[in-house]
Amino acid sequence: MCRDCGCSSQPEDHSDVLLARNDHQAQHNRHHFDHSHTLCINLMGAPGCGKTRMLERMAPELEGLLVVEGDLSGELDAQRMRRVGIPAIQIQTGQACHLDAHMVHEALHQLDDTPRLLIVENVGNLACPADFDLGEHLRVVAVSVTEGDTKPEKYPAIFAGADAVVLTKLDLLPHVRFSVESFWHRVKALNPSAHTFEIGADQDIAPLATWIKNNIT
Amino acid sequence: MCRDCGCSSQPEDHSDVLLARNDHQAQHNRHHFDHSHTLCINLMGAPGCGKTRMLERMAPELEGLLVVEGDLSGELDAQRMRRVGIPAIQIQTGQACHLDAHMVHEALHQLDDTPRLLIVENVGNLACPADFDLGEHLRVVAVSVTEGDTKPEKYPAIFAGADAVVLTKLDLLPHVRFSVESFWHRVKALNPSAHTFEIGADQDIAPLATWIKNNIT
Repeated sequence: MCRDCGCSSQPEDHSDVLLARNDHQAQHNRHHFDHSHTLCINLMGAPGCGKTRMLERMAPELEGLLVVEGDLSGELDAQRMRRVGIPAIQIQTGQACHLDAHMVHEALHQLDDTPRLLIVENVGNLACPADFDLGEHLRVVAVSVTEGDTKPEKYPAIFAGADAVVLTKLDLLPHVRFSVESFWHRVKALNPSAHTFEIGADQDIAPLATWIKNNIT
Repeated sequence: MCRDCGCSSQPEDHSDVLLARNDHQAQHNRHHFDHSHTLCINLMGAPGCGKTRMLERMAPELEGLLVVEGDLSGELDAQRMRRVGIPAIQIQTGQACHLDAHMVHEALHQLDDTPRLLIVENVGNLACPADFDLGEHLRVVAVSVTEGDTKPEKYPAIFAGADAVVLTKLDLLPHVRFSVESFWHRVKALNPSAHTFEIGADQDIAPLATWIKNNIT
């Protein structure tokens, strides 16, 4: 449950107050990133869609990368990042199903230097992360072909707000029912300007890494 | 975000008040189910883990089944149920990442008769649904082999509270990195008494359907 609410507002404006507090902190985070010339990316997707694997594969190509990992519990993803030479900070959210701007701000206070590139891997969830601005410059949403091609219709907000959508695990396509064409048609109906990428064991990850690098100022 | 909160409590007890209100409604739902001899199951799991497919496959074996489908948006899963002859009610949660007891109660008011078996397919999410009692008698959690074998460590609450855990998409095992042994070891560490099932295109779904039928009083 979203336990990050510390407001004492009236019922009708509860959600708005919570989001306003988050947005205020997110603006602060973004000013901080801009001042330090850090590109911040919010990487979102369902549990097991391949977010961490994507970061492992891009690690050799993304110089100056630091990763913030969001999970309810454990340190597994931060450990995976460190094993491929990427410094990582693990946020444990407890029961919260998403990261918020305050959690990211606290994580930044653990840093001595500001990185050139900060990728925040959000809690695995296609719903709530869409509502919480972390102060990022870009939003990337990952979906695997094993999840089915109708996910944009079921979780429209996260797709509508994405700067890039990455379809993952293309190597499993022969073994699942998934229409790549229908999936992209649904994505484009919600978000015609989203950049799109397809990755898998047999696909080069360089186009995604290059797009990220080209966004670093 | 969890927009289902209508309380005006103080910050420190906000979460507890929200959950207490839900638990009160859940008790009411459970009394209603008991009175009408309805077995209610809360089916949970990540987006695309195979919950709806599981229901489609069990449909011929589960007499008197009614399904309540929870999604942020759309009617896709209810339509899938109706196509295999199962009556279904679709709840659209908007931005809420989980069902709560009030939503299920409202859905029940759409019914003329009470079913012998009610399966509530929750919103695809491994976090928040664990916190919200719907008034169910049994909780079933589904995980696919494509999600990785570490999910119990990252989302412990939903596994700790499950009556049964179903590992799905076993037919994809040759194509992914997943240790079935490690997965069940992690589940059992959190929940030694959970019933366990394995299903996939090549596995019989009858044991799971039989376990469900045996729980109908």
